Amino acid sequence: MSDILEDLFSYVRFASVSADPRYKDQLQACADWLVQRFERAGLEAKKHPTAGHPIVVAKTAAQPDQKTVLIYGHYDVQPPDPLELWSSPPFEPVVRDGRVIARGAADNKGQLLPHLFGVEQALKEHTLPVNVIFVIEGEEESGGKNLGIFLEANNEALRCDVAVISDCPMIAPDVPTLLYGTRGVVCLEVTLTGPAADLHSGLFGGLVANPANVLNRLLSGMHHPDGSVAIPRFYDRVLGLDDWERDLWTKLPINDAHWLKLTGAPELAGEAGFSSLERAWSRPTMDVNGLVGGYTGEGPKTIVPSKASAKISFRLVPDQDPDEIRALVRQYLAEHCPSSVHMSITDHHQGKPYLIRANSPFALAAKTALEASFGSPAALVRAGGTLPILETLRESLGIDTLLVGLEWLDCQIHAPNENFPIKNLALGIEMNRRLLTEIAKV
Amino acid sequence: MSDILEDLFSYVRFASVSADPRYKDQLQACADWLVQRFERAGLEAKKHPTAGHPIVVAKTAAQPDQKTVLIYGHYDVQPPDPLELWSSPPFEPVVRDGRVIARGAADNKGQLLPHLFGVEQALKEHTLPVNVIFVIEGEEESGGKNLGIFLEANNEALRCDVAVISDCPMIAPDVPTLLYGTRGVVCLEVTLTGPAADLHSGLFGGLVANPANVLNRLLSGMHHPDGSVAIPRFYDRVLGLDDWERDLWTKLPINDAHWLKLTGAPELAGEAGFSSLERAWSRPTMDVNGLVGGYTGEGPKTIVPSKASAKISFRLVPDQDPDEIRALVRQYLAEHCPSSVHMSITDHHQGKPYLIRANSPFALAAKTALEASFGSPAALVRAGGTLPILETLRESLGIDTLLVGLEWLDCQIHAPNENFPIKNLALGIEMNRRLLTEIAKV
Repeated sequence: MSDILEDLFSYVRFASVSADPRYKDQLQACADWLVQRFERAGLEAKKHPTAGHPIVVAKTAAQPDQKTVLIYGHYDVQPPDPLELWSSPPFEPVVRDGRVIARGAADNKGQLLPHLFGVEQALKEHTLPVNVIFVIEGEEESGGKNLGIFLEANNEALRCDVAVISDCPMIAPDVPTLLYGTRGVVCLEVTLTGPAADLHSGLFGGLVANPANVLNRLLSGMHHPDGSVAIPRFYDRVLGLDDWERDLWTKLPINDAHWLKLTGAPELAGEAGFSSLERAWSRPTMDVNGLVGGYTGEGPKTIVPSKASAKISFRLVPDQDPDEIRALVRQYLAEHCPSSVHMSITDHHQGKPYLIRANSPFALAAKTALEASFGSPAALVRAGGTLPILETLRESLGIDTLLVGLEWLDCQIHAPNENFPIKNLALGIEMNRRLLTEIAKV
Repeated sequence: MSDILEDLFSYVRFASVSADPRYKDQLQACADWLVQRFERAGLEAKKHPTAGHPIVVAKTAAQPDQKTVLIYGHYDVQPPDPLELWSSPPFEPVVRDGRVIARGAADNKGQLLPHLFGVEQALKEHTLPVNVIFVIEGEEESGGKNLGIFLEANNEALRCDVAVISDCPMIAPDVPTLLYGTRGVVCLEVTLTGPAADLHSGLFGGLVANPANVLNRLLSGMHHPDGSVAIPRFYDRVLGLDDWERDLWTKLPINDAHWLKLTGAPELAGEAGFSSLERAWSRPTMDVNGLVGGYTGEGPKTIVPSKASAKISFRLVPDQDPDEIRALVRQYLAEHCPSSVHMSITDHHQGKPYLIRANSPFALAAKTALEASFGSPAALVRAGGTLPILETLRESLGIDTLLVGLEWLDCQIHAPNENFPIKNLALGIEMNRRLLTEIAKV
């Protein structure tokens, strides 16, 4: 245990903040450290330059008769700000209450190292049952596009059977968790322009369309009163839940009181006819992310605003397609926006929803390995967020991904005092070894 | 003519900006100048201190058998900013193209002086047919409440039969205009709070109510699709237009092309079944003045906002009552806001709508005087804005007000290069004299 803890300390000491150009050298040094560490473990490792931060690829010596597993991780971290809220310096790791406190301890450095150690042990024992390719990128926290380009360009060299990622939370401490589905997303921005400038609401109110009024009508028209999305054909491709999923989710150690506490909302609310978990994980949404128009300072100002705009996002579920949903949204807007205002739409990012069959051979292999390592039944969960890497791996390499998280919900990722439970380092090594063994049996 | 022009130059040289405490001395000096000028004209004048800027009152020697006319004006002006857009310094008057260019030239100094000169001439000729009380305040441009307090406290000393104000535009150059009605206003602000902080729209979207979504629904529910206001009982007290008003307004030298040019909107729009002028002058409205919530910076941010808020104003028409409408709006909000968000409502200002009978003896006196002075038929118009002074005069002194504007629509009031047409100084003197004569005949 002291070996992996020492390595984790070394790894988190790199301030590998990908979003901030001032840390560029730290990312290079961190990638170099990884290359050397993989080489020491017996892998062939290389730092690949990209238009942004480098990608580290490390491979075990290929055995042509074995399956190949791609293990993904990222060595970049979120910015440490606000620094004043940290109890110790973010890049000087300390141990407290059984956890390592440091930026990147959980996201993603502490979740990657157990895989490295698991493969290293198996190599030493000459028992590695599969070929392993590690792909560790440096732009996950800053939305870089270079990983996708790299995977596309090297899809022959990276050919594999399945991917494994530990970069997500366990549903509760000590409950091993297989994440088998995520939601997708479509983001856009709508701006309405009415009068050329803000107008006096007395002199002109009632004469011209008020773009803020029109925006409210356009946006509220996107929902039915029962909370479902009212855009025509929006639900055409939405997969319903299987009975086993509904049943299993009612038994998870997460309830409405948990969500209420976490959100601080007056009550839980959403599409009628679905439980909280069903809504968060398996139902699509439309959310206004930002609204602005007219006068937003102190006190009143009686104007008809010239402009009003909204940023909106749709969370999508399998088998909704972002391109198709974007087209439906644009069609709705075009059909409902009156000619009394000018509308402009800006497309922002999108990502596909993701789902693997929870009874597929690889998923069952993951479930078996998780339960044997942690000694308790695995939770099969989905997530409401979007993980673009899943679709990138599927599209460039044609593979499914097994998401086997090692962090806890209270690990404070992206926040001050990020931490990682030390016990999950050892459990993670064991899980890696069992998982590769189970995958080899498929 | 050179006398009144010289006095206007003196009057506008005072930088009597009431909103800015740095100009306090200028307001005092300006009030002193007025007192002296009224005294020179033969009136008894006094500067009355208030909690804010002083009020100047000037009276002719009372003849008990004559009617008494209160002429209202204000000696304070709007701030001159932005200074760089003025073609000459705002408080150094110049004449160009037949107009005096200076801050306050039109609003309200150039519109007041003709009344002073008219009364002065009549006094000299011993032909003044009414008693006159000038009340000139110094807080009109900064929303001061001291005039109302002063009028209430001195309603015996200020007892009169009718008020006259020239502080509004003529509908077109050379078209004498009697403004016989204005709209009222009710302003408030609604803030909805959902989650305690902005939430990740992937992890939490669909679990809790999004206050921006709820706000859109609440606000859009305030309108019917035909553009009318959907709040129950909102129209209960709305007076319809008389046939003569509809007829007269179709003949006014102001058409849809004019409004389109003035607003720069893609098209005119509003409540179905009414012409543009009818909507602007005689129909109530609900306008969102400002909207804000969630992320409003560049690009996307996929959050469920914690808060969203809107400033809204309602323009009211006779006989709607601001208190009653505010209560109806609050009732609508309370009944429609779901318990999944917390709502807080902040009341902002309000003002009553105003209407005088256009065929009342005083109104007909004004019409006769206007037509005789300008040599063309008078336009009888209403205005979409709100003039709190009208209700203040009605409530404290029990009188109607004749609004006989001398400025033009292009006088740039509240804007750089404010100006006043020199010809309206002489026309204004004549109008004052004829008006007082006609009032005496009532």
